[in-house]
Amino acid sequence: MSAPTGPPTHGAPGALMAAEIAEQPDVLARVLDSTDVAPVAEAVRRRRPRFVLFAARGTSDHAALYGKYLVEIILGLPAGLASPSTMTVYGTRPDLRDVLLIAISQSGESPDLVRTAEVARGCGASVLGITNAPASALAAAADHHLDVRAGPEIAVAATKSYTAELLATYLLVDGVRGGRGAAVREVPAQVAALVERRDEVAALSQRYRFADRIVTTARGYSYPTAREAALKLMETSYLAAAAYSAADLMHGPLAMLDRDHPVLAVVPDGTAVDAIRPVLERLRERGSDLTIFGGQSCAALAHASFVHDAPLAEEAAPIVGIVPLQLLALEMALTRGEDPDRPRGLSKATRTW
Amino acid sequence: MSAPTGPPTHGAPGALMAAEIAEQPDVLARVLDSTDVAPVAEAVRRRRPRFVLFAARGTSDHAALYGKYLVEIILGLPAGLASPSTMTVYGTRPDLRDVLLIAISQSGESPDLVRTAEVARGCGASVLGITNAPASALAAAADHHLDVRAGPEIAVAATKSYTAELLATYLLVDGVRGGRGAAVREVPAQVAALVERRDEVAALSQRYRFADRIVTTARGYSYPTAREAALKLMETSYLAAAAYSAADLMHGPLAMLDRDHPVLAVVPDGTAVDAIRPVLERLRERGSDLTIFGGQSCAALAHASFVHDAPLAEEAAPIVGIVPLQLLALEMALTRGEDPDRPRGLSKATRTW
Repeated sequence: MSAPTGPPTHGAPGALMAAEIAEQPDVLARVLDSTDVAPVAEAVRRRRPRFVLFAARGTSDHAALYGKYLVEIILGLPAGLASPSTMTVYGTRPDLRDVLLIAISQSGESPDLVRTAEVARGCGASVLGITNAPASALAAAADHHLDVRAGPEIAVAATKSYTAELLATYLLVDGVRGGRGAAVREVPAQVAALVERRDEVAALSQRYRFADRIVTTARGYSYPTAREAALKLMETSYLAAAAYSAADLMHGPLAMLDRDHPVLAVVPDGTAVDAIRPVLERLRERGSDLTIFGGQSCAALAHASFVHDAPLAEEAAPIVGIVPLQLLALEMALTRGEDPDRPRGLSKATRTW
Repeated sequence: MSAPTGPPTHGAPGALMAAEIAEQPDVLARVLDSTDVAPVAEAVRRRRPRFVLFAARGTSDHAALYGKYLVEIILGLPAGLASPSTMTVYGTRPDLRDVLLIAISQSGESPDLVRTAEVARGCGASVLGITNAPASALAAAADHHLDVRAGPEIAVAATKSYTAELLATYLLVDGVRGGRGAAVREVPAQVAALVERRDEVAALSQRYRFADRIVTTARGYSYPTAREAALKLMETSYLAAAAYSAADLMHGPLAMLDRDHPVLAVVPDGTAVDAIRPVLERLRERGSDLTIFGGQSCAALAHASFVHDAPLAEEAAPIVGIVPLQLLALEMALTRGEDPDRPRGLSKATRTW
């Protein structure tokens, strides 16, 4: 039999995306088993960066945002998301001594990220690439590289590469502080349990059959989850989905929310609950349709909810918390008669300059 | 006559917002005349920060994003937007030696920003507050303070405080590099000329009478303008408005754009034109309805445009570039029968923790 050529064969609508969502427990177990992280974490410790910049686009940018919270909270270092255009479009050569630049990209081939990594290294930064492609240009441009070993990702809506990037980033930061990933041992099993609940999510997706816009919100560590959920919903179901931190939601976007503009809040148990509860109460008072994904703490405020009381530290919760929302994007597309494996106008690797 | 008490009197719909938009040439002239910036810029130079963090919410967060581009490109320093929750909700005490934290807030009273400024100072950062309220808690918590002198801002949708924050931030960064604001001398006159073109914007606003969603986009320095335009449209006209950098637009959000989902691009003349043109061409190929605000360079690609060929350096263009979009938010609300001075559910100062 000859090797397959050309684009991958598509089966039933959403079959590719469903298969890659279901692969995640195995992918995450591989990330946990990897011996690559410890030496990179040790190299970062020795380098003692004073500032961490992340560079990424699309789904990987949400892994970068999670990384920013981890670096700030766990390592106590200031961190930022790079604006790649400053080094590519405007040709800036900043002073990046004592800076660790972490570039995250599934394909490792986005030209502006590769260029950003090259320029940053030339400007004194230590550069770490996190990709699903060890032979990529980004891996070659970096001082260090972590391969997330998610296997070929064929569905246009990235799922398994995202959770793999989250877990690799977590293990790196935990390694830099001297940890050995104790908080994430149960991640593969928890993700497997969530994948099993696809039917529940399918039932929940009915609620949004005729919605044409949605807002997602969260606070703190789960804000990247809200951002990634909005992107998945846009990519697969073409909803006008916008994500706001619960704090920013009160500064303006609140005005656009009416009874026909549903809100989807990501609220795992933890420290951030007390900060988001007043926002959810305000939304309820205003008549917003509110669905909550997460712990029990705020579920009573919601019109609908998907409760998963994972016994997981809040800092690790985003690694599993996105899974029901990946399933929601898949099921919502199917309910609406779309094929999430063939989103209009998108291709897998996006080239931006 | 006794002094007025209670909320300010509202006149015709949008009268307050229109008045404050029209005040901007005077406000900006006052910012230019201020002698406050030079000593603060000198203090920053002496301190020689190695990293700059910005902290802000809502409209001021877009001024902060503009500041991030200025710091990266003009000063060649890495910069980031702080996630206030890391210091407030999670109680992190990061190592902020050599960090300049710039907190921007119209009212200077947002509790999470005040707390962030206090914590950052305690962690070794030099803290600069930029507010419209010199007697505010944020001004008191900072090492240095710049008063943007915009006068009382009564309309809920901030306009004059935004451009004043942009100009003050520009003058600060320019001062740190040793400049004296040569590139922004004409800003008040240019803004006055744009305010005079309100009727043109009113005609353009007709196009969106029945739109219920819109995407705004830009690249580089003007990306904050696209973000602020989306917020203004949400606040006053309740559109589901979402802003994407033109690079990120290609990574997913593109899928949701159909013929009924208009795109509004901010494209002043300058370096970023070459980076955004391919994205605009792609949008046109896909049938998106495209309106361009800015220079002539890409206007031929658009279905509608508002051209202002300002003889202004690209780095200063965002200070005037938002003005036609403020007018659009005002006129679109009026066209749709809304009163932008009474947006539903919003109050002037937002308290977030």
